[in-house]
Amino acid sequence: MAENTSILQMTEVAALYDKQFKKDNFNLEPKSLYDPINVTMANSGKRIRPILLLMATDLFGGSVYDGLNAAFAVEVFHNFTLVHDDIMDEAHLRRGKPTVYKEHGINKAILVGDAMHLHAHRYLLKVPANCFSDVLNVFNKAAIEIIEGQQMDMDFEERLDVTVNEYLKMIEFKTSVLLAAALQMGAIIGGASNSEHEKIYQFGLNLGLSFQIKDDYLDAFGEGDKVGKRIGGDILRNKKTFLLITALNDADEAQRARLLTLFDEKDEDKKVNGVLELYAELKIKEKSEAKIEELYQKSLESLQSIRVKEEYKEPLKVMAKAVHERDY
Amino acid sequence: MAENTSILQMTEVAALYDKQFKKDNFNLEPKSLYDPINVTMANSGKRIRPILLLMATDLFGGSVYDGLNAAFAVEVFHNFTLVHDDIMDEAHLRRGKPTVYKEHGINKAILVGDAMHLHAHRYLLKVPANCFSDVLNVFNKAAIEIIEGQQMDMDFEERLDVTVNEYLKMIEFKTSVLLAAALQMGAIIGGASNSEHEKIYQFGLNLGLSFQIKDDYLDAFGEGDKVGKRIGGDILRNKKTFLLITALNDADEAQRARLLTLFDEKDEDKKVNGVLELYAELKIKEKSEAKIEELYQKSLESLQSIRVKEEYKEPLKVMAKAVHERDY
Repeated sequence: MAENTSILQMTEVAALYDKQFKKDNFNLEPKSLYDPINVTMANSGKRIRPILLLMATDLFGGSVYDGLNAAFAVEVFHNFTLVHDDIMDEAHLRRGKPTVYKEHGINKAILVGDAMHLHAHRYLLKVPANCFSDVLNVFNKAAIEIIEGQQMDMDFEERLDVTVNEYLKMIEFKTSVLLAAALQMGAIIGGASNSEHEKIYQFGLNLGLSFQIKDDYLDAFGEGDKVGKRIGGDILRNKKTFLLITALNDADEAQRARLLTLFDEKDEDKKVNGVLELYAELKIKEKSEAKIEELYQKSLESLQSIRVKEEYKEPLKVMAKAVHERDY
Repeated sequence: MAENTSILQMTEVAALYDKQFKKDNFNLEPKSLYDPINVTMANSGKRIRPILLLMATDLFGGSVYDGLNAAFAVEVFHNFTLVHDDIMDEAHLRRGKPTVYKEHGINKAILVGDAMHLHAHRYLLKVPANCFSDVLNVFNKAAIEIIEGQQMDMDFEERLDVTVNEYLKMIEFKTSVLLAAALQMGAIIGGASNSEHEKIYQFGLNLGLSFQIKDDYLDAFGEGDKVGKRIGGDILRNKKTFLLITALNDADEAQRARLLTLFDEKDEDKKVNGVLELYAELKIKEKSEAKIEELYQKSLESLQSIRVKEEYKEPLKVMAKAVHERDY
């Protein structure tokens, strides 16, 4: 672990990432395969995972340039999963633009995703040799868990007896492990010891869980204008969120019966309002807030325990706080 | 390169592969994801690619045990591509059993394929460290080309002006590169020098091309009983095979017009017989046979040029001959 002379802010890391990724686009043949990939990656959203990865490299005194290929890999892989998820969810829009599925059909979206998946691995093959094997192992474990998490999510759709712990395991796999693995990969590239890069993995894991429950929370209790989508979208789809699962578990017999009736309610306002009423009775808002806070604090404890100068952790703390306090 | 004391026959390699793969099945959770993978891998066909890989390791004096994880990777990856191809082709049967797509629907088949894809990479991570990076690079290049080849194949469906060279490039990517890469990976693991493992790649590439054109050939000129499927299946689907592309390129104006009319013919017998008649006029049978023979001879020349004892090549020669002379 080299001595850090200065530490990069999140915006600096983001700017560096964007500058480097643009250089390396998918200018390849056949265009019919690579054009949709370029469109997808140009509309690539918040780039949280690659930015976290590079911040972790920086935290441990490594050069962010050494982390770039791993960062590209993580971001291309994440977008691959979204391309395939959009088929499964029959989603027409992603970040305000038509999905590959909607624009080009199922077959193209399958193939585009498969190609992105392999190009993520192509980037991984360029990770510095001294940590190549460790980084690839962390990535592969997380990547497999993401697919397993997606399967759990699909399985839950058919079930009414999902426990909160099962739900937490599902979102851990589907959402958190890639955030956590990105941080761990970055830390390994930055030269962190085993114990230290395991701590940053835990930081990412709990931050990711907190992030996902906040997502569930905002769907019911956010302000529609800020969230940028209609409040109650999850409720309308009977989506098994932390809120709904907690409600199903905490409801008495009468409340449960009302909830199940609302699943089939066709009047949208009646449905959303009915579920929100039950959530109020069951104190779901307070329970969600408590869980989000608990997980956020756990993530900070892991960050706390990492043995580098406290001031170096500042950018990650700022990012975690922003994630935690977002109201959209 | 170690000195070989004896060389394994294809059947011995196949038996060893099967014994080892059975030990290491997908006994994982969630079952809803892994059961279809186990079913797919249990119905895994001829295992040509992993067997070739292990034979190449053996050829250069390596231990076939060192090649096993790469062999598993190649076979699981190949089956992943089939699971996704079956969605795209809306195929109901694969090797006489229902496809994952048919049995479980599109979403499950996408996810099952993605999981197999990642598990192929999991096996790759266990390749011996001394050749890890080289083996992964060969694999990744081939894997990307397979997806590109699949896209070319889909693009060709919309076109009537595909050239023979374009077709050859497509089947090279879609079919041959994985055979070739399997041999090259095996050779690298066996300790072959760069020049030698490039030669065995060329052997596999030309054998694969010859194999694919033979496949096209048997659909029109094979004996239905032996091929195990109805003769003319490709003709009925207007599939852009070597035969059809050669015919489209060699036809005069009148013949081309007849061919295009036959594309829309609804009477199946009339369609198959009409196309076969045109193939006879255009000597498509003879032209295909010449191409198959040319590519087979090219593959043998590459094998010939490899600098190991001639007798060690015997099992690969036997396998190539069997592939070449098959009538099913």
